[in-house]
Amino acid sequence: MKLKCLYASSSDCSDAFYISGVKVPDPYLSLIAGRHKIAIVNQLEYARVKKESKYTKIYEIEALKAKIVDHYHLAKKEFSLKYFVQYFFDLYKANTILIPKYFPSFLLLELQKLKIPIELSAGSLFPEREQKSQEEIKCIKIGNKASAYGLGIAQSALKASRIKKGKLYLDGSVLSSERLRSMIELALFEKGSIASSTIVAGGIQASDPHQIGYGSLKANQLIIVDIFPKIKESGYHGDMTRTFLKGKANEAQKKLVYSVKEAQKLAVSKIKANVCGSLIHDAVASYFNQNGYLTEHECDSDSFVGFIHSTGHGLGLDIHEDPKVSIFKNKLKANHVITVEPGLYYPNIGSCRIEDVFAVTKEGSEKLSKFNYQWEIA
Amino acid sequence: MKLKCLYASSSDCSDAFYISGVKVPDPYLSLIAGRHKIAIVNQLEYARVKKESKYTKIYEIEALKAKIVDHYHLAKKEFSLKYFVQYFFDLYKANTILIPKYFPSFLLLELQKLKIPIELSAGSLFPEREQKSQEEIKCIKIGNKASAYGLGIAQSALKASRIKKGKLYLDGSVLSSERLRSMIELALFEKGSIASSTIVAGGIQASDPHQIGYGSLKANQLIIVDIFPKIKESGYHGDMTRTFLKGKANEAQKKLVYSVKEAQKLAVSKIKANVCGSLIHDAVASYFNQNGYLTEHECDSDSFVGFIHSTGHGLGLDIHEDPKVSIFKNKLKANHVITVEPGLYYPNIGSCRIEDVFAVTKEGSEKLSKFNYQWEIA
Repeated sequence: MKLKCLYASSSDCSDAFYISGVKVPDPYLSLIAGRHKIAIVNQLEYARVKKESKYTKIYEIEALKAKIVDHYHLAKKEFSLKYFVQYFFDLYKANTILIPKYFPSFLLLELQKLKIPIELSAGSLFPEREQKSQEEIKCIKIGNKASAYGLGIAQSALKASRIKKGKLYLDGSVLSSERLRSMIELALFEKGSIASSTIVAGGIQASDPHQIGYGSLKANQLIIVDIFPKIKESGYHGDMTRTFLKGKANEAQKKLVYSVKEAQKLAVSKIKANVCGSLIHDAVASYFNQNGYLTEHECDSDSFVGFIHSTGHGLGLDIHEDPKVSIFKNKLKANHVITVEPGLYYPNIGSCRIEDVFAVTKEGSEKLSKFNYQWEIA
Repeated sequence: MKLKCLYASSSDCSDAFYISGVKVPDPYLSLIAGRHKIAIVNQLEYARVKKESKYTKIYEIEALKAKIVDHYHLAKKEFSLKYFVQYFFDLYKANTILIPKYFPSFLLLELQKLKIPIELSAGSLFPEREQKSQEEIKCIKIGNKASAYGLGIAQSALKASRIKKGKLYLDGSVLSSERLRSMIELALFEKGSIASSTIVAGGIQASDPHQIGYGSLKANQLIIVDIFPKIKESGYHGDMTRTFLKGKANEAQKKLVYSVKEAQKLAVSKIKANVCGSLIHDAVASYFNQNGYLTEHECDSDSFVGFIHSTGHGLGLDIHEDPKVSIFKNKLKANHVITVEPGLYYPNIGSCRIEDVFAVTKEGSEKLSKFNYQWEIA
């Protein structure tokens, strides 16, 4: 049996929150051996974790330390965290310690002294996280409702805005990326979710998919709005993107948005349990290529243009989690929840990304995001 | 020379943000050799990091990979992240790789194959983070202004509230921990900071310092309000706590609050460059002991009572950072910024914590937090 070992705060680490169901702000040890789920916490946390968590056994760190010092006949000074791991490794007759990729190095260095086989987990320590329960799917739908609420605010603000000398104005003052972002994030916060780094990026800024956007929004430019809030109560995320244009789109912009929409439909038509994520990604990539949208390094610039990211990613307690929908040959499974977000990025035309969320089913997929979308706003 | 090595997202990891000054949402490699500050990022991030960061050299990951594969005559398949580290280790003639405590294990396991000495950093990879610049002190003051703004909301809400059958009501409906927390967090969000897990905990709940509080607030009970927002723009925190009581305090509550106030004064009087943090902590602990406030494990319960946490902690990009003001024998230095937050926790009386923030100076300290405090509210 493998002893799974986590040392993390469950406020920050989704694996720790998944297994505990309670927020502990400082890092602590979780050890999982089959159905035994053990937490070792300090006196500050002990009573609360005992009352509110999903662990089967909760130990107060000092009391357990005393017990283990005694058990292994250690001098008190000799004690270190590794003996906690050793103790439960022996108790449950484990043969390997399984740690996550992001397990802290200080503790790995300690564990290596135990001369016990240590194995690195390829993804989450709990691969079952990839396949969502109905309860989790409900939480993600609520996340996307929050995203859609934010997109609605953006769409309405663009509708209500006026164009003056090429810039957008709302209620008499400039409508900037920062202003629209803060309108969105504030409204979402009021409704119980935290959105940060919300992308509101227009024109050439949007050709960098991680640029969150700054300065006045402009007429006749494509504006990407990407909203990925975390619902405070559940910890689950929504993740949706729409691309808008205030004013009048030119032919190149229309064709670009049309192509991204079509690419998304194509991708969705291929989702189904047992299909490779790479097959979906490849379909999108070839569709773009066939329509003349090449992905390449732009001459005389630091930028890459075209379809420069993967088609999607798992969504849940983390914004980006397994499975990836990309060149990797992962097979989709029922109840995987993934984003489908093809995008095209050309500084000279503009950039467009459209993102929705789907639960994989045996026969196809269920859409978990909904938005009444009008991209070109007069 | 030591080659400092980080693999982290600068949106999440304060060391990475400190050295880069730019938010990169996915983990990436930063390598620091003396004045050379190197980032290796993917094509998505390349242009933005090049434009906005404090790195002296920014590499696009695929281009650098090609160069290194060539340099070491590797087969493309042999390549892994460790060769990036090896390359700059050789280039700058380093003799050790220095990694932080929370360096990801997957990469440590790779680096161990290089047979190069690896050293674990005791605290931050950049211990200079402990001593704040005037610019950083300004940012922390802004953080505390946000905390104080939130405390003001709590104090006003308690003033405006009415007592009915022992419970607090505001504008006709129950004033709960959740409601007051959301009033505070929403107001702070509007002003540009993110506060989460704000503590509004009354009565017996407050005897667990990490309990954020739930349910109706009650009259004649001590209510701890602890607000530690992160200013969105700068990334720096504020951290202040006050303890309130709506109604009429009894003698035991009055004595408890008085003692915590006095303990804070005592602690502050001892702050000065070159003083041990443990000396300050010990002074507080003995003051409480001498006044009959013992720290102990409560019989027949899972709880510890008394002065059950340390006197303070460093504050900056992280809420808790070095130096600790506790049993550890760290010497304070000028421009350390620390919280001073004595507290007493007794389920049968109530709990009280009062927290302010100070910059250590040669001669004493400068207070970085300010609030017009009235604890007992009729």
